[in-house]
Amino acid sequence: MTRELFTVVTPDEAIRRLLVHLPTSPRTETIRTVDAIDRVLAEDLTSPQNLPAFVRSTMDGFAVRAADTFGASESLPSSLSVVGEIAMGAMPGRSIGSGQCVRIATGGMLPAGADAVVMVERTQEIDDSTIEVLKPVAPGENTIAIGEDVKSGEPILQRGHILRPQDLGGLLALGVVDVTVVGRLRVAILGSGDEIVSPEVTPSVAQVRDVNSYTLASLVRRAGHEPILLGVVPDDRGRLEERATKGLRDHDILIISAGSSVSVRDLTADVIESLGEPGILVHGVSLKPGKPTILAVCEGKPVFGLPGNPVSCMVTFDLFVVPALAHLTGAKNLPRSVIRAAITRNIASKAGRVDYVAARIIERESQLVAEPVLGKSNAIHTLVRADGMIRIAAEKTGVAEGEMVEVIRF
Amino acid sequence: MTRELFTVVTPDEAIRRLLVHLPTSPRTETIRTVDAIDRVLAEDLTSPQNLPAFVRSTMDGFAVRAADTFGASESLPSSLSVVGEIAMGAMPGRSIGSGQCVRIATGGMLPAGADAVVMVERTQEIDDSTIEVLKPVAPGENTIAIGEDVKSGEPILQRGHILRPQDLGGLLALGVVDVTVVGRLRVAILGSGDEIVSPEVTPSVAQVRDVNSYTLASLVRRAGHEPILLGVVPDDRGRLEERATKGLRDHDILIISAGSSVSVRDLTADVIESLGEPGILVHGVSLKPGKPTILAVCEGKPVFGLPGNPVSCMVTFDLFVVPALAHLTGAKNLPRSVIRAAITRNIASKAGRVDYVAARIIERESQLVAEPVLGKSNAIHTLVRADGMIRIAAEKTGVAEGEMVEVIRF
Repeated sequence: MTRELFTVVTPDEAIRRLLVHLPTSPRTETIRTVDAIDRVLAEDLTSPQNLPAFVRSTMDGFAVRAADTFGASESLPSSLSVVGEIAMGAMPGRSIGSGQCVRIATGGMLPAGADAVVMVERTQEIDDSTIEVLKPVAPGENTIAIGEDVKSGEPILQRGHILRPQDLGGLLALGVVDVTVVGRLRVAILGSGDEIVSPEVTPSVAQVRDVNSYTLASLVRRAGHEPILLGVVPDDRGRLEERATKGLRDHDILIISAGSSVSVRDLTADVIESLGEPGILVHGVSLKPGKPTILAVCEGKPVFGLPGNPVSCMVTFDLFVVPALAHLTGAKNLPRSVIRAAITRNIASKAGRVDYVAARIIERESQLVAEPVLGKSNAIHTLVRADGMIRIAAEKTGVAEGEMVEVIRF
Repeated sequence: MTRELFTVVTPDEAIRRLLVHLPTSPRTETIRTVDAIDRVLAEDLTSPQNLPAFVRSTMDGFAVRAADTFGASESLPSSLSVVGEIAMGAMPGRSIGSGQCVRIATGGMLPAGADAVVMVERTQEIDDSTIEVLKPVAPGENTIAIGEDVKSGEPILQRGHILRPQDLGGLLALGVVDVTVVGRLRVAILGSGDEIVSPEVTPSVAQVRDVNSYTLASLVRRAGHEPILLGVVPDDRGRLEERATKGLRDHDILIISAGSSVSVRDLTADVIESLGEPGILVHGVSLKPGKPTILAVCEGKPVFGLPGNPVSCMVTFDLFVVPALAHLTGAKNLPRSVIRAAITRNIASKAGRVDYVAARIIERESQLVAEPVLGKSNAIHTLVRADGMIRIAAEKTGVAEGEMVEVIRF
């Protein structure tokens, strides 16, 4: 029975249909800020204090009253008496009055009475207790004011932000040593195929080793989540349904990577339909490779039926699973980084279909060029040889040699 | 004593001076391929077998002798007798002769005698044991040949390659279940500063919390290596030297993040000089922020004296530590991904100096624009508010509003 008379939709429409059915209230957990690199922030954060909390010098020199330097010049310097030195990390021992200054290093705290710092290069030492200032400073010059980095109560980071090294530094500088982040999603990966064996096993003739379970697991890990391998089951309705049901019950997301024959795709679709409402939302996408993709939501959890060809599997993970993970966690990703390069040959493409073409990035006469790697989408080494994929938009009928294209890293 | 009369060099020259003194024979270890994501391959790999190892169908249809279909058309179809069906993962039970065919699904093994597959859509079923072929197929059509993905003995991946999801899949498909990778480098991070306290501690007035140890640790982790925090010591020659000596002895790399005053920089330089030959190679780079950077090699290990300002610290890590890590591991990185965007305002820059300016990426009328985030380099929240840094090359005197710039993610 060839039941597969599905209506293909565009990739954008497919994502929209999926996301509209997904919840946006992730599990959260509170962890130490020092361990929170690349985690998704689950709360809006405001600063608990001013940073810096005191006026600091940004130069090596002398803390002064700016007014005492007004009018100073090389020919008519202002003379100031040096009444002490600021020790780093300590409260200044004294304040300064008119005509006075203290030695201060970068990062030191300005004493009471001082409102600016004269760089050491703009002074000359007359004796141990006298300097001449050769150029005036304005109030606040060469200092960082209280709250100039961040003010008490100021919003710092928003829910959904993915924490970077500087964010951890910025939070720790404010004494924020714990943060509430979104829990990692548990992504169950289920393979299916009578011909698939585990990589450790030497396949008999007509058998092949499992590839997709491991590429998918690595992709899930790279996206910051936890892959759970459910193994490979034969193309048998009962066994596939049993394993899929349990997989979905115990985890947050289920990905089924099945064979590419119509009967196996029908089997996968039947099993997904059995997992709960609303069921299959998309069955077939105007995309190459990756047309026979199934997107479903069952009992509030996303279920993906990804094509068995390894290249299609990776492309559809990137196009459909990645946005679903971001939606479920509330992660606000920046536009994806791409490498712009000139394509080395003409590539035809069908209008109305989004095409992904594997490509190698090569530096040629200090220009980056993208050289298409041609190969079947069931050949994993097509992507091993490539640095990424060129996306050809649905409205285009191809790209011409020399045209600038964007290569998405894979 | 203001000893700091160093000669500044360009960032490129600084990197060159450093790398030329670094060894390129990393420690290696053999690990399971499934655990090798993002690790640096330590060996050149060739394929131990043909992939696929047998001729497979890439379509659902009928395995045929191509010659039997020559001349077939809708008006004059070729009639073939269906003598069986290929089970997935099993050796075909029989061969086919002239005028015969077998049913086959995508991924199935072609039986002896067959050399092509006719798609089911190009046939019509007459009865259970007869089909008509409506269009000819060429030998090899709709099949993937032995070794078409990768051939036995063919080079697959080279030493220095950073393993990606598809690489793990490609290796596992070939039964390569263990790989030899470069050991993670152990990077010791030592802070110095009389005014620095641990983030858990509420600083007294004039003290600040440690920021750089944690941003550096996250950067090291993101680069795939292991950070070891040696803590913060006061600006005291004896204690700094003792901790630095032990840190360098026990680890592969030492980073000292010290204060920004001239006396502390001199202290750091003195300590680094005491760690071994050849010692300091670069002291001062034509770079803003990040000018007072120290690059050294002591007893074959790189030692970095990075500026204490958090923004300078991150920029100099990226510029100098990242290439050193790649050099030590032999990692062959692709050109870095950047986001191209139009800058929203004029930014002046000094010719002869490379400038890094923090920027936010904003989507405006479906165009990406880069909005500079102005702030002092001792203000960590400058980088918290930014999405990355715009690099202004040494030969430029600035960038003009509307000019396209490349924003490096931070």
